[in-house]
Amino acid sequence: MQLARVAGTLVATRKDEGLSGLSFRVLEVLGVDGRKSGGYVVAVDGVGAGVGEVVLYATGSSARQTTATRDRPCDAVIMAIVDSWEVGGEEVYRKTPAGGEWAS
Amino acid sequence: MQLARVAGTLVATRKDEGLSGLSFRVLEVLGVDGRKSGGYVVAVDGVGAGVGEVVLYATGSSARQTTATRDRPCDAVIMAIVDSWEVGGEEVYRKTPAGGEWAS
Amino acid sequence: MQLARVAGTLVATRKDEGLSGLSFRVLEVLGVDGRKSGGYVVAVDGVGAGVGEVVLYATGSSARQTTATRDRPCDAVIMAIVDSWEVGGEEVYRKTPAGGEWAS
Amino acid sequence: MQLARVAGTLVATRKDEGLSGLSFRVLEVLGVDGRKSGGYVVAVDGVGAGVGEVVLYATGSSARQTTATRDRPCDAVIMAIVDSWEVGGEEVYRKTPAGGEWAS
Amino acid sequence: MQLARVAGTLVATRKDEGLSGLSFRVLEVLGVDGRKSGGYVVAVDGVGAGVGEVVLYATGSSARQTTATRDRPCDAVIMAIVDSWEVGGEEVYRKTPAGGEWAS
Repeated sequence: MQLARVAGTLVATRKDEGLSGLSFRVLEVLGVDGRKSGGYVVAVDGVGAGVGEVVLYATGSSARQTTATRDRPCDAVIMAIVDSWEVGGEEVYRKTPAGGEWAS
Repeated sequence: MQLARVAGTLVATRKDEGLSGLSFRVLEVLGVDGRKSGGYVVAVDGVGAGVGEVVLYATGSSARQTTATRDRPCDAVIMAIVDSWEVGGEEVYRKTPAGGEWAS
Repeated sequence: MQLARVAGTLVATRKDEGLSGLSFRVLEVLGVDGRKSGGYVVAVDGVGAGVGEVVLYATGSSARQTTATRDRPCDAVIMAIVDSWEVGGEEVYRKTPAGGEWAS
Repeated sequence: MQLARVAGTLVATRKDEGLSGLSFRVLEVLGVDGRKSGGYVVAVDGVGAGVGEVVLYATGSSARQTTATRDRPCDAVIMAIVDSWEVGGEEVYRKTPAGGEWAS
Repeated sequence: MQLARVAGTLVATRKDEGLSGLSFRVLEVLGVDGRKSGGYVVAVDGVGAGVGEVVLYATGSSARQTTATRDRPCDAVIMAIVDSWEVGGEEVYRKTPAGGEWAS
């Protein structure tokens, strides 16, 4: 899985019938230090993630193993909202009511 | 999923029998800002996308989960035509009858 | 799928039993402009493609969806020989009896 | 599979129900020489790997073939803790009680 | 599939039970010209390849289609030992009892 920040939303009314009812999020991929890596992915939201939240997403066939996406033509899914992570014993990120706090 | 613009078409009469009846589109991959990333992919069209349209495509085994592509030797499929997307609260792209409008 | 040119052949007599009877092709990956991208892949030939021909190949689990490759330990397959493609309304490549013609 | 060092942990309480009970590790990807490659991945821990250990991880659908991860929306799993590896007849790394020894 | 040279071995005693009995090889990935590309992968050996041999390996779910690796958490497998390959009508590599001969 990779880390990402929910940067926005995407609307598509004309789509494969297997996608009806799913909502799309535009994700900016993050490095392990929490900085933007420059990449992005459009993912289905499996957990109710809002814009600005830091999430974990899975790709490939694993993206079809959530309740929302089973057997759907979907290759990326948000499967968790991140509370915190640490590297080398130091906390890099912690979610707060204000939207998340980063180690400086 | 990634964003792309339908740049053209591809014809192949000699192909695996599992591909008969499918039509191929040449896609130019787009960044989240709507600019060409330099990459491309040849995808099966699952939704009737025309040249110039902005689409979402899925790759890998997920590309075989549409009605058109089930059990076919196909690793990329257009599964949605994009109406609009936004990043950071600002609209990047909106489809119009004239072919789409981009934030400048 | 990606575009490639069949650059050569590969022989391997000692191999997993699931590969017996399959023939391997060395593919040079092409950009959408028909130029070599610098990458290559060794693919199973599912359509009888000869050296010099321009082909489409599929990767991953989709490479096992042809008659020749079902349930084989194969992650790349030539699934079509390209007749022509166009980008932006201009033809980039057209197959000819002499081996293919490129827009200059 | 690729080599990595367990760099830290990640906590996510709001996640797809298929992930309950799994623990996440932040992995720094290693080159064959044992140096950090700059990449990372968040993986499910299938073998009880601690921070600082050198591990092998698998990605894609293969990440769902462990007892812990079967049918889970997980695309990366630690499936082995590395004791040692060698390249060109020279040992690159050997695990020790103190945390691992590297050829200098 | 990609070309690689078996560069060494890897030992891991603590691993997912689905991996018991498999042996790991460290592969240096080769370009189509037979030169090292700089990448590597750790693969399960499905054909008894020795250090120094030039092999073909498959990745992803296709790596689980050999007798040795079926349903195992393994995402890369050596599925053939290469005898020779040619590009543009010229032989690039041919296996010899002494370990392989390269076009200069």
